[in-house]
Amino acid sequence: MKLLITGASGFIGRRLSQALLAKGTIGSKRIDRLVLVDQVEPDLTLAADPRVESRVGALLSQCASFTGDRFDGVFHLASAVSGECEDDFELGLRSNLDTTRALLDALRIATAAGAQPARLVFASSVAVFGPDPSAPLPALVGDTTLPAPQTSYGTHKLICESLIADYTRKGYIDGRAARLMTVTVRPGKPNGAASSFFSGIIREPLAGVEAICPVDPSTSHPLTSPARTIEGLIAVYEASREQFVGRLALNLPAVNARVSDMLDALERVAGKAVRDRVRFVPDARVAGIVANWPAGTTAERAAHLGLHADADFDCIIRQYIADCSASPEALKGMTR
Amino acid sequence: MKLLITGASGFIGRRLSQALLAKGTIGSKRIDRLVLVDQVEPDLTLAADPRVESRVGALLSQCASFTGDRFDGVFHLASAVSGECEDDFELGLRSNLDTTRALLDALRIATAAGAQPARLVFASSVAVFGPDPSAPLPALVGDTTLPAPQTSYGTHKLICESLIADYTRKGYIDGRAARLMTVTVRPGKPNGAASSFFSGIIREPLAGVEAICPVDPSTSHPLTSPARTIEGLIAVYEASREQFVGRLALNLPAVNARVSDMLDALERVAGKAVRDRVRFVPDARVAGIVANWPAGTTAERAAHLGLHADADFDCIIRQYIADCSASPEALKGMTR
Repeated sequence: MKLLITGASGFIGRRLSQALLAKGTIGSKRIDRLVLVDQVEPDLTLAADPRVESRVGALLSQCASFTGDRFDGVFHLASAVSGECEDDFELGLRSNLDTTRALLDALRIATAAGAQPARLVFASSVAVFGPDPSAPLPALVGDTTLPAPQTSYGTHKLICESLIADYTRKGYIDGRAARLMTVTVRPGKPNGAASSFFSGIIREPLAGVEAICPVDPSTSHPLTSPARTIEGLIAVYEASREQFVGRLALNLPAVNARVSDMLDALERVAGKAVRDRVRFVPDARVAGIVANWPAGTTAERAAHLGLHADADFDCIIRQYIADCSASPEALKGMTR
Repeated sequence: MKLLITGASGFIGRRLSQALLAKGTIGSKRIDRLVLVDQVEPDLTLAADPRVESRVGALLSQCASFTGDRFDGVFHLASAVSGECEDDFELGLRSNLDTTRALLDALRIATAAGAQPARLVFASSVAVFGPDPSAPLPALVGDTTLPAPQTSYGTHKLICESLIADYTRKGYIDGRAARLMTVTVRPGKPNGAASSFFSGIIREPLAGVEAICPVDPSTSHPLTSPARTIEGLIAVYEASREQFVGRLALNLPAVNARVSDMLDALERVAGKAVRDRVRFVPDARVAGIVANWPAGTTAERAAHLGLHADADFDCIIRQYIADCSASPEALKGMTR
């Protein structure tokens, strides 16, 4: 079978590509061809796999050519992120709305030409939820909580969920949407996103660097590891249509943790000296943004697919440490 | 001030145009120019008004020119209807999504060029709601019930609500969305839409013609008159931003009536002989579609704007009879 991953060189895309190549099959079908689309070249190890075909360039300009591809399945991860969309409204519309529409229409045209409707997993986001004075967010945001995005990014994700539901209802694709939670611990540098500190307060102390936490220790948020996210995307792909009773969008599982819980876990896993590298310097702007995000989520529909969250935040930290085993620099601050 | 109405020659558009010209002002500002856009020429009486400027043609091809118009306000009513969208998917995408996007972008560009953000009322629809096995519809569907459209038309309306909320959040427009209920009694011929009988079982008997009711007399639905719908659109336009706490979309008020209530009203208003012209001939296809629609709605947010439903279905019938005073043919079946 022939699979497409959009946004394949991103944080999630690379890990998903690796996981699928290692697994070799999806939905008990052998993966013969894995087409990786991204503006950035794939890792050399991925590109070297004979099953991989890399197509580097803007997704929007490539979609028309997909009508001849007859993809059996698609993971649609490509997206301009939250901060980019707020800074450049037209970029967001083009990258997130126009591109998804072009992708869906290419698949629709392929179906009309006789292809089996492609199975498509869309990476949606917890950002579809937001505070709504006319219908306040519950303490735990569930699969069927009324969305009210407060960013263009969340708006685009919600709109794409609706489009995918309608293209699926019409039989043009076999779509489903997995709402990703905040994935930690992201490697690399702080990226200026308001959520950046959720990774930074773990990553920097482990590297021996001081980290600033801009919010109160009682701040709670739904968090997940890269591994659980990849597992979720694959399970959502492999689920039968019948397992999606009603709507096609679901929350992926998360650990609902307070910042203080995260730091307690950091101390347990890496020692008190590491934890002590986190300083609290309140930032009203960041705290205000974060106050608008869900404090926690539930994922009942994902549970029906056999998915579960990381056991606790300790597991999420241990996963990051294991991922960093090849780069000792990232862990030079560890005291145990 | 300069106002644009899209879909101005439709059932609602014509009445809204008449009402606004008669009123002469909106939001206490004098209407100097009323631009009517539709694929169909406006009524001669409308076209003769010196304030009216008619622009006949496809809305999509006209949007780019709106950047120079500096509209103070817009009523965006133009839409391909439910049946058209189901029959021609691309027509629906073009007429409802691409056109709304082009309209919003023209207004955004005008704002960027220094215009005051245009106030925009979008005619959304009760069709955004649908049955969802994962979150069943409540007996009464409210402003904050989770939408789950079961048609492309409803999907497009929901997507446009989200776009309008985001363009408003960014300050590009001052948008709001009024979800129209099923407007009765529509004049003219049955149009083949599944909802057509809600008007037909009143209109045909009044004209002395037998009507077929394809659903059970206990079938309930939210219904409204053209006059209350026009009143609602204008009130939603005139409301201040502050009156829209949280989300910008609201249900317009409706009379939640069973078919049997509608026929009881018909008998009270027009006599038993008129009612007896309605025959029940069950149609499983129509009944199946209607079973997926809300049986009733509430409109708390509209109530805060001072809006209310027709007092009862008798009022809706009397309004139709008054509207037909110039065409005795439409009422030749009346026995009192």
